Amino acid sequence: MKLKYELIKKDKQTSARLGRLTTDHGSCETPIFMPVGTQASVKTLNPEELVAAGSSIVLANTYHLWLRPGEDVIEAAGGLHKFMNYSGPILTDSGGFQVFSLADTRKITEEGVTFKSHLDGSNLFLTPEKSIEIQSKLGSDIVMSFDECPAYPNTYDYIKDSALRTLRWAERGKKIKLKSHQNLFGIVQGGEFEDLRKMSALETVKIGFDGYAIGGTSVGEGKDVMYKMVEYATKYLPEDKPRYLMGVGDPLDFFEGIKRGIDMFDCVLPTRIARHGNAFTRSGKLNIRNLKYKLDFNPLEEKCDCYACQNFSKAYIRHLIIAKEVLGGRLLSIHNIRFLTKLMEDIRLSLKEDRFLEFEQEFLKQYKGK
Amino acid sequence: MKLKYELIKKDKQTSARLGRLTTDHGSCETPIFMPVGTQASVKTLNPEELVAAGSSIVLANTYHLWLRPGEDVIEAAGGLHKFMNYSGPILTDSGGFQVFSLADTRKITEEGVTFKSHLDGSNLFLTPEKSIEIQSKLGSDIVMSFDECPAYPNTYDYIKDSALRTLRWAERGKKIKLKSHQNLFGIVQGGEFEDLRKMSALETVKIGFDGYAIGGTSVGEGKDVMYKMVEYATKYLPEDKPRYLMGVGDPLDFFEGIKRGIDMFDCVLPTRIARHGNAFTRSGKLNIRNLKYKLDFNPLEEKCDCYACQNFSKAYIRHLIIAKEVLGGRLLSIHNIRFLTKLMEDIRLSLKEDRFLEFEQEFLKQYKGK
Repeated sequence: MKLKYELIKKDKQTSARLGRLTTDHGSCETPIFMPVGTQASVKTLNPEELVAAGSSIVLANTYHLWLRPGEDVIEAAGGLHKFMNYSGPILTDSGGFQVFSLADTRKITEEGVTFKSHLDGSNLFLTPEKSIEIQSKLGSDIVMSFDECPAYPNTYDYIKDSALRTLRWAERGKKIKLKSHQNLFGIVQGGEFEDLRKMSALETVKIGFDGYAIGGTSVGEGKDVMYKMVEYATKYLPEDKPRYLMGVGDPLDFFEGIKRGIDMFDCVLPTRIARHGNAFTRSGKLNIRNLKYKLDFNPLEEKCDCYACQNFSKAYIRHLIIAKEVLGGRLLSIHNIRFLTKLMEDIRLSLKEDRFLEFEQEFLKQYKGK
Repeated sequence: MKLKYELIKKDKQTSARLGRLTTDHGSCETPIFMPVGTQASVKTLNPEELVAAGSSIVLANTYHLWLRPGEDVIEAAGGLHKFMNYSGPILTDSGGFQVFSLADTRKITEEGVTFKSHLDGSNLFLTPEKSIEIQSKLGSDIVMSFDECPAYPNTYDYIKDSALRTLRWAERGKKIKLKSHQNLFGIVQGGEFEDLRKMSALETVKIGFDGYAIGGTSVGEGKDVMYKMVEYATKYLPEDKPRYLMGVGDPLDFFEGIKRGIDMFDCVLPTRIARHGNAFTRSGKLNIRNLKYKLDFNPLEEKCDCYACQNFSKAYIRHLIIAKEVLGGRLLSIHNIRFLTKLMEDIRLSLKEDRFLEFEQEFLKQYKGK
């Protein structure tokens, strides 16, 4: 079955949308946040913990899984769902972002990208076809087109060439056969230039995909630039397909993205900051290493329904983080993922109840993480 | 309530015993294996996973918790059980072993041991009284006497002096007030010398404790020496108290200890080898990094009822370990703890059914870890 996006409701004051995404591996309401399982594991967590933390769709990274363990191993396992023992929807990125952010000495040609592995320096070559072939073997529910993520800032001419190439790559990738449950998303590029974003959006839509992502928005530009890029692009995207803002997991960006029509977000932020002892709360981020939590036997956040808050104190988690015990990062990861999924639940509820902007104001009044 | 040990059955062919240990935080059948939560966390696991892996009593380390987060923090939390959110029985060691194995430049006097912290080199002083006071604050169910763990080999004269000092330390520690649910174990020392083990056992019993441990058995001596030390000591220990062989977690040592009358074992082995990619199986240890598991989609061990074996393949766990994903060590830890708790369950069943030595033979026929 093909992915289905139902637009449940449009906000009256903004471009925010309440929707529902349905795949062969389950459905979820949008807007939604997707935790990242880079190497087929959301760091430190098992699949049951992810689901318990309110996560209903996860992301995995094509570049990392291509290198390790290799897409053939995962295909032989019966696909990513079986390999990870996770039965919900999975989205895989194209590898494009990692090629441009992790790999060394890349060379871009019309054919694809030549670069060196960040693991062992070996020479690798990734093409639009190869990226989709790998993702086909991984068996994810949502497959991303292979795009170029140009560095920011860049010249208008370079961004134009790059966006046009990404369009040609999108067409090439679309010709690769996917499994029957798989769906292909296109990626809108065009940097910070309004006319290029428009061109890229219109042409990507012309090729025709099951959903559309806004790319190149976390590669160095500031927040205002990012919000503009989103605005430029979303107005040319069809209402009946989901829109995905890649690599964004900051609570404030959720609001800014959603009011510009975004339905899906992903980021490593909740697990990455957890490893450094940071926890999201409604009044802002806290660092659990702070001495003031030494004898604080309250949960990370009162009223939080996550496993960490229901069972452990700040003092215990502080001890675990300082003593370098893995359980500390694990508990903070659970809490941070739950914080983001709960925030999305509250945003969706506010959309249902026609009070999205009011909810944003309430949230911003408390949240000191700007 | 004081700890209760019920001797359910004595083996006819060996000194093995089937028993039951009851504390205010629950009871467990013996012989038993206790996983180690060095810093108030069995590495990578949460309390529910421990219980699901068949663990019914855990150990925590006084030395580590004294240094971090400090016994006052744990007392303020309401004790270790509340701090860790673990409601089952907890045993704390005395810190003696860590002082002699981890700390630098120690100096032993009649009063206690002066040494430097392994964390920051600060000067520390631990006495028998202080060790018990710390454990009293930790609130563990079983408290261990503070002993000297002399290095192996050593002179008869040194071991004799040391064993006599440990006896004086045991008497001093016994004077410290414990909480009403706490119980104090004495530790038999005496190195590899039969007469010193006998002396130490008889004198420790004369002081009178709720249970008895055999100490100094994992500090360098070979297995044959260790088995003899156990044999020398256990014959002088009362039948109505539990006996604990400290720091032993090798499956083969379980059989050797149990047939010499041991009821309790502890070791970091299952979690430590997990971090290096090793798994116990009934046919011996395997290292999951081995290339032959790359496409092995079977569980670590057929018929194993642990969470890892019920949900994930060798190929997936191999990928996680190679990719340095924490979930890999976590799954192997669960499996290894379950392996040891299940082995103890099978040993107890064999004692119930009067076929302990037969079961040992069956096990040894398969197990290639000698």
